[in-house]
Amino acid sequence: MLPLPRHVHFVGFGLIGSSLARALRRLNSTIRLTVYDHNPVVRGTIEDLGLVDQVVASLNPVPEGTELLVLAVPMLAFSDILKTLKPPQGTILTDVGSVKGTVEDALRLYAPSLLPRFVLGHPLAGTEHSGPEHGFAELFQKRWCLLTPLSETDPHALGMVQNVWESVGARVDTMSVAHHDQILAMTSHIPHLIAFTIVDTAVALGEDLCQEVVQYAASGFRDFTRIAASDPTMWRDIFLSNKQAVLSMLDRFTEDLDLLKTAIAEEQGDVLFKIFTNARRIRRDIITAGQA
Amino acid sequence: MLPLPRHVHFVGFGLIGSSLARALRRLNSTIRLTVYDHNPVVRGTIEDLGLVDQVVASLNPVPEGTELLVLAVPMLAFSDILKTLKPPQGTILTDVGSVKGTVEDALRLYAPSLLPRFVLGHPLAGTEHSGPEHGFAELFQKRWCLLTPLSETDPHALGMVQNVWESVGARVDTMSVAHHDQILAMTSHIPHLIAFTIVDTAVALGEDLCQEVVQYAASGFRDFTRIAASDPTMWRDIFLSNKQAVLSMLDRFTEDLDLLKTAIAEEQGDVLFKIFTNARRIRRDIITAGQA
Repeated sequence: MLPLPRHVHFVGFGLIGSSLARALRRLNSTIRLTVYDHNPVVRGTIEDLGLVDQVVASLNPVPEGTELLVLAVPMLAFSDILKTLKPPQGTILTDVGSVKGTVEDALRLYAPSLLPRFVLGHPLAGTEHSGPEHGFAELFQKRWCLLTPLSETDPHALGMVQNVWESVGARVDTMSVAHHDQILAMTSHIPHLIAFTIVDTAVALGEDLCQEVVQYAASGFRDFTRIAASDPTMWRDIFLSNKQAVLSMLDRFTEDLDLLKTAIAEEQGDVLFKIFTNARRIRRDIITAGQA
Repeated sequence: MLPLPRHVHFVGFGLIGSSLARALRRLNSTIRLTVYDHNPVVRGTIEDLGLVDQVVASLNPVPEGTELLVLAVPMLAFSDILKTLKPPQGTILTDVGSVKGTVEDALRLYAPSLLPRFVLGHPLAGTEHSGPEHGFAELFQKRWCLLTPLSETDPHALGMVQNVWESVGARVDTMSVAHHDQILAMTSHIPHLIAFTIVDTAVALGEDLCQEVVQYAASGFRDFTRIAASDPTMWRDIFLSNKQAVLSMLDRFTEDLDLLKTAIAEEQGDVLFKIFTNARRIRRDIITAGQA
């Protein structure tokens, strides 16, 4: 197995960054961990948590000796950061953003010299909580981390980033940027959009009815609100970043919903039963795939 | 506290019926529990589980001495059962159906003489598993059970049914049939319909892409498939039974979804941020209401 980096620097330190830091620290008590976060309040929280060796107050200079730099910021922050970031020579870079096309575009536009040593990555892990105080070392265990290497990516850099994710318990797979963004639109972005929408629909019912909906939140709505409790900034950025794939999948979803609506309106019980039975089979497939 | 019934007979015995039986047995080891289920395979399973004192193979005659009869069947089974059921004089009846309008209609049409002693009820509890083998005694603890008494309902019958639900840990509230069906459309029926739809959309992507969606099912899609794994017969019946309320809430949801779609297409980040922030607040309200 390849050695792990001896010094990891994080730019942005929320749920994902802090979970990765905790997992790396658990593997190696002498690893050097440093952090820059643009938000002074978050920097204070990180100091208080005592998880890392140093918190710095500016993006540059990147702490000397950084072997791996992890960008763990909302999607719309990439452009500004890549315009100004000056990593030491030889530092390998990676990110954890949910939309890989945006990161690739920003790289090609603002930091093409980083292309060989920047490994685009996305761990499929998270909770509805955000912020460094909610991270935990086990977050990535048995979860997928998808890497989307570009034609320019140095195999050595790819190997190191893969090694880091596997060492914290993730299963790594590689695919193209476009394929990643299409799959994530369906598995994550559309479900979140729908969850946000249905909670908004409940709010629009008016205060009295909404209060009762909240009070009697049965299975279903309750689960949707959990999904919809995710970080607003992160999700706004995701939808604006993966606009094309999200809108295209959303069109398919809307067509399907119209079909079910018609089936209910016309009381086609057999159509409903068939679709519901299919859905149950997919759930079994997911349990078999170990992602339940 | 009112005494609990000494003999409870179940018509239909899936997740809900068997959970109630387990909870009542735990409270009182000498309570007499009997069951009729129309499905011989399920009757065999119930015999094997050894949860009840007697399994009978026909709807009538209802076992002598039954003090409370619990109808725990899918919505579309009520009409046929109420047409032929002959409960002993003095037996109090209740049900656990998700749509109260259907039960009221069937009662008024086929068994009006039962109106005073039939208490319409609905425990807001369940899992994605179905069948008597998946029941558990703790299912109703701290969950709501909504009772929708009619103008004819005998207060003594209402009191007994309320007492049964409270004794197994549920919080009981009463409301009108119409109000119940509207609230449940929003809290439960629409979320399930959407979950079924999105899983169906994934299936329609074609085998290769769907397989990857299953493999990388991130938070969001994974939660939706869990909701969508619920019993197909039960849910087909619910949608056909609560057609009007479901279609009306679905129209509101579709309007809201169009709004978010436009916000993404036109890159209105502030609109998205505001809606997502509202959704998070509702989640906090639900946690405060103790239903998370």
